[in-house]
Amino acid sequence: MLGASGIAVRLEGMNGAVDFPLDRADLTFAASGDALVSRTVLPSGARVLSERVPGVRSATIGFWFGVGSRDETGVGRQDSTRETSFGSTHFLEHLLFKGTSARSAFDIAIAFDGVGGEHNALTAKEQTCYYAKVQDRDLSMATEVLSDMVTSSLLDATDFENERGVILEELAMAEDDPADVVNERFFEAVLGDHPIARPIGGSPATINAATRDAVWQHYRANYRPQDLVVSAAGAVDHARLVADVERTLAEGGWAMDERSAPVARRGNDEAKLIGARSLATVRRPIEQAHVLIGTRGLRAGDDSRITMGVLNSVLGGGMSSRLFQEVREKRGLAYSVYSFAAGYSDTGIFGMYGACAPQKARSVAAIMIDELRRLASDGISHEELARAVGQLSGGSALALEDSDTRMTRLGRSELGIGEFADLDETLRRLALVTDDDVRELAGTLASRPLTIAAVGAVDDDVFSGLT
Amino acid sequence: MLGASGIAVRLEGMNGAVDFPLDRADLTFAASGDALVSRTVLPSGARVLSERVPGVRSATIGFWFGVGSRDETGVGRQDSTRETSFGSTHFLEHLLFKGTSARSAFDIAIAFDGVGGEHNALTAKEQTCYYAKVQDRDLSMATEVLSDMVTSSLLDATDFENERGVILEELAMAEDDPADVVNERFFEAVLGDHPIARPIGGSPATINAATRDAVWQHYRANYRPQDLVVSAAGAVDHARLVADVERTLAEGGWAMDERSAPVARRGNDEAKLIGARSLATVRRPIEQAHVLIGTRGLRAGDDSRITMGVLNSVLGGGMSSRLFQEVREKRGLAYSVYSFAAGYSDTGIFGMYGACAPQKARSVAAIMIDELRRLASDGISHEELARAVGQLSGGSALALEDSDTRMTRLGRSELGIGEFADLDETLRRLALVTDDDVRELAGTLASRPLTIAAVGAVDDDVFSGLT
Repeated sequence: MLGASGIAVRLEGMNGAVDFPLDRADLTFAASGDALVSRTVLPSGARVLSERVPGVRSATIGFWFGVGSRDETGVGRQDSTRETSFGSTHFLEHLLFKGTSARSAFDIAIAFDGVGGEHNALTAKEQTCYYAKVQDRDLSMATEVLSDMVTSSLLDATDFENERGVILEELAMAEDDPADVVNERFFEAVLGDHPIARPIGGSPATINAATRDAVWQHYRANYRPQDLVVSAAGAVDHARLVADVERTLAEGGWAMDERSAPVARRGNDEAKLIGARSLATVRRPIEQAHVLIGTRGLRAGDDSRITMGVLNSVLGGGMSSRLFQEVREKRGLAYSVYSFAAGYSDTGIFGMYGACAPQKARSVAAIMIDELRRLASDGISHEELARAVGQLSGGSALALEDSDTRMTRLGRSELGIGEFADLDETLRRLALVTDDDVRELAGTLASRPLTIAAVGAVDDDVFSGLT
Repeated sequence: MLGASGIAVRLEGMNGAVDFPLDRADLTFAASGDALVSRTVLPSGARVLSERVPGVRSATIGFWFGVGSRDETGVGRQDSTRETSFGSTHFLEHLLFKGTSARSAFDIAIAFDGVGGEHNALTAKEQTCYYAKVQDRDLSMATEVLSDMVTSSLLDATDFENERGVILEELAMAEDDPADVVNERFFEAVLGDHPIARPIGGSPATINAATRDAVWQHYRANYRPQDLVVSAAGAVDHARLVADVERTLAEGGWAMDERSAPVARRGNDEAKLIGARSLATVRRPIEQAHVLIGTRGLRAGDDSRITMGVLNSVLGGGMSSRLFQEVREKRGLAYSVYSFAAGYSDTGIFGMYGACAPQKARSVAAIMIDELRRLASDGISHEELARAVGQLSGGSALALEDSDTRMTRLGRSELGIGEFADLDETLRRLALVTDDDVRELAGTLASRPLTIAAVGAVDDDVFSGLT
């Protein structure tokens, strides 16, 4: 939540860099490909960003709050264990679809279904976002309904109980998905007591213990004008968007003329990176063993994040990647194999995933570890570097054809590292990455203690001695 | 595979209807929203269709063959059981990525990875498609690589064995996914001995028994110029696309000047719709029970298919649908609940899906059946009809912003029912659907024998008396 002080966001692109401070109400920025990025800070502190893309007839809009599952501390019943607030961010996200003082849950559903729009929300570890994709003519309607949801939801007690059942089913679905389970075990094993390690949705125990009052308190504490970022992309008229946001938030009862106290910036929890484990297996009588190997990665704002993108592309980012070639193409050991990295404000994660027959799980794990170590010792070739740059730049260009991608980029830029890079700037940074950078980063990762998590007909012994 | 005789495809839109017969080499059609549809039949019988969309910088291209898992009869080892050919269409699809006389598997992978393109294939019950999405400058390259794959793949014996392992892992992954398993059991229970009932990928037994010779025979028998439809959408120059296709297929050794015997049209297997069952449960010790309820649906070309779209929208097509409201919103019984319909050349399927706690499975099944019967007895309101039309028309407009959707629409129009309808024509047809049409169709579905398939901690007894 960098928006709370000083420079809120820096935009970089073909026209150089522009800093957008909070006290500058309106700024625009010509981004690559004729897109126009605009940003307005309303007197209440609410921020509105848009990216107008010529020639498209649809728009995606998101209402973002910089609060996620990791921030669930101090919320919840004070007389109970700290755990009872876990999952409340996600619980709240569900309840915002259940009705406001002006609209029933059914009214909200038909508003979007009736125009063929897409309408959903996501709760992440550090953000919550309510979004919709609609035709241009429906953008004002979408803005109005989303504003109503974030300002005026009732959190009715009966709805609360019904939704508890829905969320328990969502958790049960995840528990039946071995790829989901191995991911949760992996985060816990790598990050230990760090709040990022916790599952976003909580657990059946914390959801069964959740109270309407605790979720209401979470809603009132975190959903305020100065916490809100609205981002929209596609067929968007910025002035009209700003007017729509300001009007509908005011209609929802938010004080739009006075700036409240800034959002408390999230603390640094690196000290809680303790209790990591090297092995975490869950035995299940299923066909495949799902294996995740990795270690602590880079923070979201780390200067090496572009290098991490290149590393991931070469190691496990496509059909030409080393993991795909070694595990699947040459040996036929797995159908799905890849590597990944995720960055958060004060820590990150890096991992390699493969799903295979249980009796091959040790071989697949050994190959993945070997490939990481080989990357650290031998680095990558010039051809691999060129291909990775081609893959990342071409993939970025294709992804930006979706207004969803642009809306998400805007929202995350503002709430996350406080920096917006357009396509030209992204390509410029990619071109600066060297093969030495990649080898060095691989060396850093390979030197950290490795964790192996697995779900399937395997146990810890299968992987003994590998890490 | 209507393209083999008479009128190949009829295009309908704001400018009226145009029939594209096979003996007319080139035709163009101005579709809604400034798109231009062009179709060329090459002297060899290969068909090339494109939809040029102004203002976009990417394109999606697909190479289609009208052969799918249902057509796996008479292919395979003549001295073995008929089952040994099951899965060969999908096995072949995998092998086309493994190398040609000109390119290794790695060369194929880097061709697309190096430009950040997407590159994949799909095997369906009645089609196989190899496709790529790339920036406009890379479309000729994509055409060349896909041509090489469909004309000149080697099906090397060592690669064949490696890929057998990969496919067995893919089947194991599906076997571990209860939603996949319930879907397969549902198709079998509803369609009985009909070839559409079979799993697309075969079974571990048929894949273990598969021979390189059988798959090679399948390749040679079904991949020929007169079987091929190339469709592309987005930033496409039709003349250049046609030239690229013709040149690269000729380089692959295909005879491009002589028309071979037309493709044998698929037979009608309706007589094999025997052996349907009303209950099919698979007991598993997992958290959720996955329940599928339905019956035989409409053929792909059925005149009532637009009505089926409206029915599905009202019954289970979004958050405002009856199933979502009754099962999730009002009672909190499930996280995921919806209805669906799929049409094939001579049969179809209609179903309602919900995943819930095992002890609630009977309640969820009873509600779903009640909602279908209520639709048949009481029909839908004018408001529901208007909302469904809004949802389907708005959703179509949004979907057509992706060149993937347009490429798929073109390919399926040519290979499937022989009819291309642009957005205006789709909207015109939607506007003709009445609430009586929907009630009548619901009555037809409700009068057919219902099947309940389930996977989870349940057995047949749980559902006794419901169907």
